[in-house]
Amino acid sequence: MKRENPDLFGAASNERDVGIARTKSRDNAREQDSRLSFEGRLTRGLLNSVGNPPIRVTLWNGESIFTATSNPVADMRIANRSCLLKMLINPELYFGDAYCNGSIEVDGDLVKLIEAVYQGLARVRSTGLRSRLSKWLNHGHVNTLSDSRENIHHHYDLGNEFYKLWLDLQMVYTCAYFSSPDITLEQAQIAKMDHVCRKLRLRPDETVVEAGCGWGAMALHMATQYGVRVKAFNISHEQIDYAKARAHALGVEHRVEFIEDDYRNVNGRFDVFVSVGMLEHVGREFYPELRRVIYRCLDDNGRGLIHSIGRNQPNPFNPWIERRIFPGAYPPSLREMLEVVEDWDFSVLDVENLRQHYALTLKHWLQRFENASSRVKEMYDECFVRAWRLYLAGSIASFNTGDMQLFQVLFARGTSNDIPWTRAYLYN
Amino acid sequence: MKRENPDLFGAASNERDVGIARTKSRDNAREQDSRLSFEGRLTRGLLNSVGNPPIRVTLWNGESIFTATSNPVADMRIANRSCLLKMLINPELYFGDAYCNGSIEVDGDLVKLIEAVYQGLARVRSTGLRSRLSKWLNHGHVNTLSDSRENIHHHYDLGNEFYKLWLDLQMVYTCAYFSSPDITLEQAQIAKMDHVCRKLRLRPDETVVEAGCGWGAMALHMATQYGVRVKAFNISHEQIDYAKARAHALGVEHRVEFIEDDYRNVNGRFDVFVSVGMLEHVGREFYPELRRVIYRCLDDNGRGLIHSIGRNQPNPFNPWIERRIFPGAYPPSLREMLEVVEDWDFSVLDVENLRQHYALTLKHWLQRFENASSRVKEMYDECFVRAWRLYLAGSIASFNTGDMQLFQVLFARGTSNDIPWTRAYLYN
Repeated sequence: MKRENPDLFGAASNERDVGIARTKSRDNAREQDSRLSFEGRLTRGLLNSVGNPPIRVTLWNGESIFTATSNPVADMRIANRSCLLKMLINPELYFGDAYCNGSIEVDGDLVKLIEAVYQGLARVRSTGLRSRLSKWLNHGHVNTLSDSRENIHHHYDLGNEFYKLWLDLQMVYTCAYFSSPDITLEQAQIAKMDHVCRKLRLRPDETVVEAGCGWGAMALHMATQYGVRVKAFNISHEQIDYAKARAHALGVEHRVEFIEDDYRNVNGRFDVFVSVGMLEHVGREFYPELRRVIYRCLDDNGRGLIHSIGRNQPNPFNPWIERRIFPGAYPPSLREMLEVVEDWDFSVLDVENLRQHYALTLKHWLQRFENASSRVKEMYDECFVRAWRLYLAGSIASFNTGDMQLFQVLFARGTSNDIPWTRAYLYN
Repeated sequence: MKRENPDLFGAASNERDVGIARTKSRDNAREQDSRLSFEGRLTRGLLNSVGNPPIRVTLWNGESIFTATSNPVADMRIANRSCLLKMLINPELYFGDAYCNGSIEVDGDLVKLIEAVYQGLARVRSTGLRSRLSKWLNHGHVNTLSDSRENIHHHYDLGNEFYKLWLDLQMVYTCAYFSSPDITLEQAQIAKMDHVCRKLRLRPDETVVEAGCGWGAMALHMATQYGVRVKAFNISHEQIDYAKARAHALGVEHRVEFIEDDYRNVNGRFDVFVSVGMLEHVGREFYPELRRVIYRCLDDNGRGLIHSIGRNQPNPFNPWIERRIFPGAYPPSLREMLEVVEDWDFSVLDVENLRQHYALTLKHWLQRFENASSRVKEMYDECFVRAWRLYLAGSIASFNTGDMQLFQVLFARGTSNDIPWTRAYLYN
């Protein structure tokens, strides 16, 4: 952006902008004051507290409240007084529950509505609401061996049939890599696996250990396309069974061993360590243990890659996601993520942020989910459908607005010179 | 590396290897015991304390001590007892001083000798020597405005004539980018500037602020090759004068403004923030101040890049380098480096480690320096020549052995979606 007279204090000017918005919304507010009920004024307070997003809120009594200066992106209908009160106490948690049980309805684009809220929250980030929530949420994550098993079971053992309805053919439930935005989800998941394999420079007959292998797509891709031998760990029983069956069908059981066990029980030495989408479930208090595992199992010229959802700043998941969708999960900031490789002698070679790719991945998933929603409703119930719709839509909004990141961290033994000269080989 | 029976405990097996080496050197030692003088045994202890590198040490009395199992890469001659004793007290600091005043002579490849020491130290890193040194060195760095000026003057105001003797034509005194190892230093410095400009996706008429601009090559390259307008800050008087003269010669004073001032006095708002080779001199205690400067001056869709020498783990410069060559300098670990962008809402998009490129850059510099050494001796003295030879050779060894890293960190405002879809554009 060209500027003839640069403004001296960026931060200050941002605050001014917010200030202006606030003043205008206060004017709206005064006009409304005369006719607004007590609940209406509470609703206006709620909208103020999340930065006055362009959302129209309609109450059970027909009152309509709108505090933004731009046009509304969507309408939110609150069914009753108790729902409004719970929203006032803990909006980030209760919005999810209320949406699922139908006491909140959204007319218009759910993703745009949530994006508007994230953008509003970004404007008022400095205020107490979020930091209070963060502090409160930072307690109570436990990921001991048994708890991890329970947490993972909660999400990943919902039944392979359910995930088959909306994931790609290979059942890859992590961020895809869209070399170009218009390729299919199937192509983008294969491109992601190749992107990871090329970053790791896999050579035939090298040994790989994978921590958190999902339904086994990556391990099988590495073995069949790069000729390596893989030991893949996962504590989800249903996923391991599925992966073993695929290995058998592909006739590569001799090259890929799927092990139903925790990453903390990985042993042996390997040329390569890879973990895609597991760190979110490890829990920060166990990063040192993960580091010990990697240090122990990585060969002298070993390389490693960790792929994880992350944050720009330390901040837990949205409480509703963390409680209802991913118990015990935490998206680390990049600095927190690097605790896994720093301090012991690893060398970080490459970090890539793929947040836009995750937004697009989720967009594909939501589309497929909606096409299968009647089947999902048969398998579970309407509330389940609404919960997953909200989780997928909310995640799109998080990655689109920069609330969430996706980091791939490539590293090697600190003393190894078996490292690429440039990254051109990834793109030629 | 293919392994039929992976060894269960990598770390343990490393220790075993070291153990074997130690046993062998103990055998050597026992053989030698009978004939070694007291000083000879002290020398053996010194070699043990740095991991028994393959270096033969010859004393003033003609005794020769060698504790490694492989062949010696170089010979080190110690001229007198006081030199040996100082080496025992503080080898990392005194080796440099002794080499400069000639009480230590090296026969053979100086780079290989230092690499052997770094590799030895890596084997005994866990022992006290290094960490004690680190703790001791972590105190006393002061980089207030006035001290920074003094520290920078110490190194960068040696005289442009001196640097002209061995830098590239554009006087770029930071790590180059060798798109291929066989291009010239001149080509590699231009490639580095283009690599940075492309990472930042400069567009014509955008505004750039550069913190620590050296002799101005990057600012001038950005303005002449990418059509942007640059404000470039540097506290080295000689460098700023040189840069202004070049801007005048190139007729771009209207697009590039060179300002003799500290980064902390940067004001205004810009599309791009860039700093190449300054962070090493900022001092960790001032990272929050640098972060405030970046936050204040970066536009809503602003991008930034910080290029700095770094470490895999927090660790100060070699004390001799820090005291005699770069007073007040500190190479941050990547996590320490990220303190500059994390916590306030920036998003890290890309991190690249170019340590091998710095080793090659330094190799070019050393070669050119040796070709000009007689001229340097005329300008200064023999001790100065030996100090700079040691600094350049030691730096090659540091980057070759993984003791030092070179990080480029690309970031953007956390809420900006003006970010590249993939990194392919950097390589096509």
